[in-house]
Amino acid sequence: MILINGESKEHIDITDRGFQYGDGLFETIEVSAGHAVFLQRHLDRLHLGCLRLHIPFPGAELISLEAEKLCCSMRSNRAVLKIIITRGSGGRGYRQPDVIRATRVLSLHPYPDYPQNYSEQGIVARFCATQLGLNPALAGMKHLNRLEQVMARLEWTDAAIQEGLMLDINNHVIEGTMTNLFYIKNNSLYTATLGQSGVAGIMRSIIMMLSAEQGLPVIEHLFTRDELLSADEVFVCNSIIGIWPIKQIATTQFSVGPITNKLKSWLDIFTRGSIQQ
Amino acid sequence: MILINGESKEHIDITDRGFQYGDGLFETIEVSAGHAVFLQRHLDRLHLGCLRLHIPFPGAELISLEAEKLCCSMRSNRAVLKIIITRGSGGRGYRQPDVIRATRVLSLHPYPDYPQNYSEQGIVARFCATQLGLNPALAGMKHLNRLEQVMARLEWTDAAIQEGLMLDINNHVIEGTMTNLFYIKNNSLYTATLGQSGVAGIMRSIIMMLSAEQGLPVIEHLFTRDELLSADEVFVCNSIIGIWPIKQIATTQFSVGPITNKLKSWLDIFTRGSIQQ
Repeated sequence: MILINGESKEHIDITDRGFQYGDGLFETIEVSAGHAVFLQRHLDRLHLGCLRLHIPFPGAELISLEAEKLCCSMRSNRAVLKIIITRGSGGRGYRQPDVIRATRVLSLHPYPDYPQNYSEQGIVARFCATQLGLNPALAGMKHLNRLEQVMARLEWTDAAIQEGLMLDINNHVIEGTMTNLFYIKNNSLYTATLGQSGVAGIMRSIIMMLSAEQGLPVIEHLFTRDELLSADEVFVCNSIIGIWPIKQIATTQFSVGPITNKLKSWLDIFTRGSIQQ
Repeated sequence: MILINGESKEHIDITDRGFQYGDGLFETIEVSAGHAVFLQRHLDRLHLGCLRLHIPFPGAELISLEAEKLCCSMRSNRAVLKIIITRGSGGRGYRQPDVIRATRVLSLHPYPDYPQNYSEQGIVARFCATQLGLNPALAGMKHLNRLEQVMARLEWTDAAIQEGLMLDINNHVIEGTMTNLFYIKNNSLYTATLGQSGVAGIMRSIIMMLSAEQGLPVIEHLFTRDELLSADEVFVCNSIIGIWPIKQIATTQFSVGPITNKLKSWLDIFTRGSIQQ
């Protein structure tokens, strides 16, 4: 089931600026037992993104109601809810129309059938050749301009590799194609600063919050490939997969370490708590 | 009239990767007296863009036939033909499907009613605060990830300003929000190198070719705001407007100079020749 501006439809006007220019934002949310996990956080990020792009936010209440409607229609226990907000149709070229009627699209998708061992034994990652451009005006947002990620994901078809790590044009390691990246070194947690590129993931922010609460220092900085490869533990995360430890990057091996396991259990408890509320 | 994969339709599946990720390319073409101006050059660029993005090119012949069909339906003397090619639907997230069925959308739009004096007396431009990110993997292409241009165009509503000039994150002046930028200094023509950002416009390439043929040296390089402001003449161009001299950037005045006028007349002759072929 798909809801476009509240109506059950599957097609969008080709004049929609989401299609014409990628002029919008999206969220990808886990749905578990009919509950959209961390929905409020996703809506907050969407709202913030709309403010940055000057797109009128359709309102958390309206979107929540529509999300609930979709989640009620679910037949499986788990699914993925995708929310897209665009600047709607109209305007002359890049110039927006005088009155903006944002388009909202909510759609439900099957939960991806990732093997359980990705989360337990870890995954294999590679470095992508496709670089992330630097742009403070767009950095951090989960906007619809995602050609960099598409190009990076094109680079490999080997099913033994589960994620590609992307560097920015200054050779700082930023994130995975569909995940944020963390590493642990000397009992501190490190992740990339996202002021110039990358997506500020909801799962990333939760992990940073839980770490800080538990007394594990969190450091955002820009780091190189070599710094990453000298880490004690490495993992990626997003709202759908939670945490996947990385057991191998290119030819360097890592073990699934104690801090990653602690973070996974803190996250489990926090997620269950949020669902039961 | 709009043709989506050859059929008269106005809506596209929301699963189309053009809508989901901006995963595609476009061309904007002047139609004059039923003739799509420089169509072959636009199709060549589209083909090249498809090669770079690994999207199967639907074929110049097929697109030309559909363009002709649309142009025949025209009631006015002038129009704008827009061609969009996307990677179609499918795949898991950013990962493309195993078999790609590109989507092609051809649509005809009214020719914008720009006053004649823009082309004769010149326009007023401003510098935009929104910067162009640097990304060699995407630079030069007219792809569907156009949030930078949308954000730049959001910066002003003053109708007295016709174009915004964009700098990259290293403060090099690259192009206008919807145009390429040239300046003339000491009888040479200068324009920005587009290896890291910007769109390599068809009109830009024609102007460079005509200049070289006529013995006017053309230099592609990276230049600053101050270098631009010390120019003898400045103009912007694209496939719809041709050449618009710039008479003012911020507070600096320029006159519509002899070389800009020569370029305009060379371009007129070349365009007429191409239509009569």
